Amino acid sequence: MDVHEVVEETLAKLGKTDGVWISTFSAAQLHARADEIDPSLPLAGLTFGVKDNIDVAGLPTTAACPGFGYSPERTAPVVQRLLDAGAIAVGKTNLDQFATGLTGARSPYGTPQSVFGGGLISGGSSSGSAVAVADGTVGFALGTDTAGSGRVPAALNGIVGLKPTRGLLSTLGVVPACRSLDCVSIFAPDLGTAGRVMRTASGHVAGDPWSRTGQRPLILDPRVAVPASLDFFGDAGQEKAFARFGGDLKVDIGPLLEAGDLLYRGPWVAERLADLGEFLEAHPDAVLPITRDILRTGYGFSAADAFRAQHRLQELKLAADEIWQTADVLVLPTIGTTYTHAEIAADPIGRNLDLGRYTQFANLLNMAAVTVPHGFTHDGRPASLTLFGPAFSDETLRHHARSLTGGDVMTIAVVG
Amino acid sequence: MDVHEVVEETLAKLGKTDGVWISTFSAAQLHARADEIDPSLPLAGLTFGVKDNIDVAGLPTTAACPGFGYSPERTAPVVQRLLDAGAIAVGKTNLDQFATGLTGARSPYGTPQSVFGGGLISGGSSSGSAVAVADGTVGFALGTDTAGSGRVPAALNGIVGLKPTRGLLSTLGVVPACRSLDCVSIFAPDLGTAGRVMRTASGHVAGDPWSRTGQRPLILDPRVAVPASLDFFGDAGQEKAFARFGGDLKVDIGPLLEAGDLLYRGPWVAERLADLGEFLEAHPDAVLPITRDILRTGYGFSAADAFRAQHRLQELKLAADEIWQTADVLVLPTIGTTYTHAEIAADPIGRNLDLGRYTQFANLLNMAAVTVPHGFTHDGRPASLTLFGPAFSDETLRHHARSLTGGDVMTIAVVG
Repeated sequence: MDVHEVVEETLAKLGKTDGVWISTFSAAQLHARADEIDPSLPLAGLTFGVKDNIDVAGLPTTAACPGFGYSPERTAPVVQRLLDAGAIAVGKTNLDQFATGLTGARSPYGTPQSVFGGGLISGGSSSGSAVAVADGTVGFALGTDTAGSGRVPAALNGIVGLKPTRGLLSTLGVVPACRSLDCVSIFAPDLGTAGRVMRTASGHVAGDPWSRTGQRPLILDPRVAVPASLDFFGDAGQEKAFARFGGDLKVDIGPLLEAGDLLYRGPWVAERLADLGEFLEAHPDAVLPITRDILRTGYGFSAADAFRAQHRLQELKLAADEIWQTADVLVLPTIGTTYTHAEIAADPIGRNLDLGRYTQFANLLNMAAVTVPHGFTHDGRPASLTLFGPAFSDETLRHHARSLTGGDVMTIAVVG
Repeated sequence: MDVHEVVEETLAKLGKTDGVWISTFSAAQLHARADEIDPSLPLAGLTFGVKDNIDVAGLPTTAACPGFGYSPERTAPVVQRLLDAGAIAVGKTNLDQFATGLTGARSPYGTPQSVFGGGLISGGSSSGSAVAVADGTVGFALGTDTAGSGRVPAALNGIVGLKPTRGLLSTLGVVPACRSLDCVSIFAPDLGTAGRVMRTASGHVAGDPWSRTGQRPLILDPRVAVPASLDFFGDAGQEKAFARFGGDLKVDIGPLLEAGDLLYRGPWVAERLADLGEFLEAHPDAVLPITRDILRTGYGFSAADAFRAQHRLQELKLAADEIWQTADVLVLPTIGTTYTHAEIAADPIGRNLDLGRYTQFANLLNMAAVTVPHGFTHDGRPASLTLFGPAFSDETLRHHARSLTGGDVMTIAVVG
């Protein structure tokens, strides 16, 4: 298809789903961009959305907080790499304010719905990016993932989500959530596209203190572990869907869950205040009440609490790393259950924590993660798997995920 | 010499210098130990002292706080490795209480003096270990080094001090100061002995969350840098002594100094509270007033402050790592000036900070360090150099230090 036709098609789809986009380039801007693309480039003409906590010059960055918004002078290096490879940035997507939340229901710019309907939340915080990919508006999208924001909305919209090893994709030009944990993530309809985007977007960026490079050999036939026990929060459908995956090698994920609890229930909430505290106190009314309340729990922790939690995390890392002595890949359900907007409204804090139960430990424990669809529950809700591995195992995870989703998984899903 | 003769000689020397030892094994115990040593072992019959914040079964661990003291059931793995190699642990050495301080003047167990006399402090916090080596009582000694405790007293007593890469020597069984930064350090009269001890003491210890292994190739002819500017606190003698070293490649150590200030003037003081806070509040009168006052400044920092400082440190690491683009080794004076006990008494906090100016950044910035004697000032005070390199450059540092101290440096010193 001609690049201008791609642009026209994208323009026609924009706004197909409510609450997905915060700002977009104009038709004229997108066509001008299409004119300058060298068709020989690896991502030539592939359209993408950018979560609105990542800078794209020419569009404001809001982090879903209008009062916080600014006009960035520079495009974030991770976005620039994609533009340099011929991709077309369409606009900025909605998110849970300041990337704080996993529901997609915490934005003044509207509330996206899961593409599967039924009143299901889109998931968050990268809500708009996931839905824009799932409804076919763009070819891929960038999100961010601190506690699960790149995986939970992938699960709720039946698409692929890559949560790369921390530091592989630069976070320069990204509004910090927890600066030491933040990752840029990738949403795509399939693993092939996700992998192409990943290879283009990753790499060392000079001047980024969090940039890391590293290597781990690709393992073609990884040893795969599953948790010895799991809590599906009473959701028999998701439990049955995960049971289809099977898995003989069982491991204790207790240390992972304890580590994850440090993020929202422990001192890491205060890491968000390290960057956002000043704005929060100067403009408390500019912030959503739920976001403000969550962020302010960070004031309850002392520096000694923070160090104590980091010491505990170091012990938990030791325990978690034991998993990699017997397994190369750990597979979990991305989320234990799905929620409707009504269910989230009834318990917005508690159910947000439930959504993060199997995602929020990954960055604390220095893991890479790949989320893939895993068919549907018997009552038609999306099921999803996340594959975890140690830092720099990204390729092994993508490779193994491809073998899981090569055909039969989706077939089982449709009849399951 | 027969091992029993070594023991007898050691017993005769014990107590030669006041305030060095907190507890020692009895003559009978040492002779019994001598009986069981296989003379073919690499460290057979070599006597050593252990800083009294490191566990040795059979002697109490006090951390120079009698009220804190306990009787450890297990010997710290790092000590056990030395015992297994045939070395003889003589006893536990004095220190600045809880390893908090660089003067050697903060202990209820007496105040060691520098072996060079003149009212000079021994330096700390590993005061007893350094003096016990310098006065020839033991063949080597273990210290700890968080902010410079393994280097400052080496400088003030004319001996070698190794501050290994964090995690190479296990800190299991060590009373924590700042758990994420603490190192076990080695004092020896010469680099050969220090290296033999280092090779025996280092290595992965299962169950130690802070244990690290890594490698960096030995560089035989390293590129050596010195600071573009230095503050000797008005000490022309030390300035002249350092000028003997020369060095053409000049680098900016501003980021190192800023990082170092985070340790005592910034939120890292609170890391000490993470472990000691509970004891401090339960037994405030058991702690020396100066130690109590310093530790309590940690309460002034919030968790957000701690994370903000860690973010700044990450930026400073980036700046500091640029040094390793042009140099393999950075050489600094270990201390800018020496102090007498009277001078420390006149300003115990301020002058302690001055003593740490060129040491306290090393662990925060993930550096290895080796301290060696560098002759004397014109007025007969000890001068000392510290060589720094990136993590796991320990061998390159020891090798290059040996070339510096191969002969001429000491000769210059004696006539200088």
